Amino acid sequence: MSTAQPPRRYAILGTGALGGYYGARLAHAGVEVHFLARSDVGHIQRHGLKVESIEGDFSIDRPHVHEDPADMPAVDVAAVCIKATHNHLLAKLLGPLLGPDTTVLVLQNGLEVDRDAAAVAGDDRVVGGLCFLCSNKVGPGHIRHLDYGHMTLGEYDPGRAPCGISGRLRRIGTDFERAGITVELSEDLYLARWKKLAWNIPFNGLSVLLDATTDRLMAEPPTRELARLLMPEVAAGAAACGRHIEHAFLDRLLDYTARMKPYRTSMKLDHDHHRPMEVEAIFGQPVRIAAEHGSPLPRIDTLYRQLQYLNAATTTPQP
Amino acid sequence: MSTAQPPRRYAILGTGALGGYYGARLAHAGVEVHFLARSDVGHIQRHGLKVESIEGDFSIDRPHVHEDPADMPAVDVAAVCIKATHNHLLAKLLGPLLGPDTTVLVLQNGLEVDRDAAAVAGDDRVVGGLCFLCSNKVGPGHIRHLDYGHMTLGEYDPGRAPCGISGRLRRIGTDFERAGITVELSEDLYLARWKKLAWNIPFNGLSVLLDATTDRLMAEPPTRELARLLMPEVAAGAAACGRHIEHAFLDRLLDYTARMKPYRTSMKLDHDHHRPMEVEAIFGQPVRIAAEHGSPLPRIDTLYRQLQYLNAATTTPQP
Repeated sequence: MSTAQPPRRYAILGTGALGGYYGARLAHAGVEVHFLARSDVGHIQRHGLKVESIEGDFSIDRPHVHEDPADMPAVDVAAVCIKATHNHLLAKLLGPLLGPDTTVLVLQNGLEVDRDAAAVAGDDRVVGGLCFLCSNKVGPGHIRHLDYGHMTLGEYDPGRAPCGISGRLRRIGTDFERAGITVELSEDLYLARWKKLAWNIPFNGLSVLLDATTDRLMAEPPTRELARLLMPEVAAGAAACGRHIEHAFLDRLLDYTARMKPYRTSMKLDHDHHRPMEVEAIFGQPVRIAAEHGSPLPRIDTLYRQLQYLNAATTTPQP
Repeated sequence: MSTAQPPRRYAILGTGALGGYYGARLAHAGVEVHFLARSDVGHIQRHGLKVESIEGDFSIDRPHVHEDPADMPAVDVAAVCIKATHNHLLAKLLGPLLGPDTTVLVLQNGLEVDRDAAAVAGDDRVVGGLCFLCSNKVGPGHIRHLDYGHMTLGEYDPGRAPCGISGRLRRIGTDFERAGITVELSEDLYLARWKKLAWNIPFNGLSVLLDATTDRLMAEPPTRELARLLMPEVAAGAAACGRHIEHAFLDRLLDYTARMKPYRTSMKLDHDHHRPMEVEAIFGQPVRIAAEHGSPLPRIDTLYRQLQYLNAATTTPQP
């Protein structure tokens, strides 16, 4: 673990497969990172954070880890890494972290998730990020990084307009790049979110509904073809919102998935552990927004309703 | 059990939930019925057929039951009650039963199933039937009749044309009515098959994909609504083939399902027992035929591909 003077101070809200990985990368690069954890806070305090990574294992022996956001300092960047199903907690979680210049970085999947953070922190504070990461939390304070890790960042606009590349976006990008993460800065967060859905909708959805890892879905012709048919519906939804996703991009997503290591998606893991799935952010919002713009997405809507049923049938009430 | 002289001779090919029920009803009414059974042939020879029914329990103590179709006599009516997934066996099963005037009654779900029987027995011999029956086979020679039992019969035409009500159709209808079954004679078997699909497609499909009984699917708003959205796609497929299904009929189907006792569909039972599901007859054929007529059925196609995946992933090779 580096002991260099940290250039900036980050908070990681949610030390799971995603927040644990990126936060540990930042801390390993010398950034001052404050983790908010729940069940494993004591374990992390005693044993640190351990990352098994295809790029080399490492650990953070004495991370700043907190159970209560009220104990955390104000930060330069507060990264929202909890599930979107818990966004009703954002006011409580973000409040103590907000200084005059704090940026809230929403690293969640789906549409309209930035809006939840903006409602708490203000529209001007929010930037969004999409993570192309295969990682799992395999035990207390223990992250397994399986593949990829690329991040796309963009400025949030409440009117969903593209808003170019800001200075703060560049600085956050530089922080992650110094930590070994490849970063793309997007002028159009809303387009980036739709593009990410072109992966999440087929593979999160079908992995849950068919109890399958990504490699199995790609290996069987009916599901490979179904993924190929769902993706243009995502593009149609984006087009209804004035965003163009190229067909070649969808082909690259399929190639990328075919080359990926066998992966249990985060939605599949949530379902397996009887946790609520991010069905509204990833399926409900795109279906509703596309419908508002006159574009029905019948295949996606079919998966959406199936997943709603499973969410209702298998989850326990949320806290 | 009645000992009256049987008016006609029937064969029941497949003594499962459906064949066992209708065959036992016919035998109970005095018809000479020859059952073809597989795993439980010895049990039925020794202990007979037992039917627990909401309309009153009864049993057939000494049924004619055969393991090999070659041992069966020629019959007036050979009722095909095996799964459509086993239609490659029809030549072997039907051959010994065909006399000069034998009618083959295809009591299977889906489209193009009559064609399989016609390929063996000849177009002119085939009539089709749709069964609105909730029954399960709960043990060897043991049928549990849960609800309904109505049957719709129609003449098969290889060109899919309506062909009116024939004399032999009336005679078969009368045989079943005497056995206590309500029978509707349809001038248009192809329309009747599409109408039956308006139930089978949503409820067989979703019961498997969501591990749910029909009452659960009707109780949860997302799946009740999805069923309501799948039904008009079936009607669109029928319309592409020149058949009109009224919206009021679809509403009645939903009402009927809401009033039905909690039911594990036959496709769900097949899946639970790792048997191949009738995915092609019930989903693949309608999707392909509608597409040939210029009507894509995206919601049904989405279920179809999911079910194909499950069929490939969970069934053992067929004999």
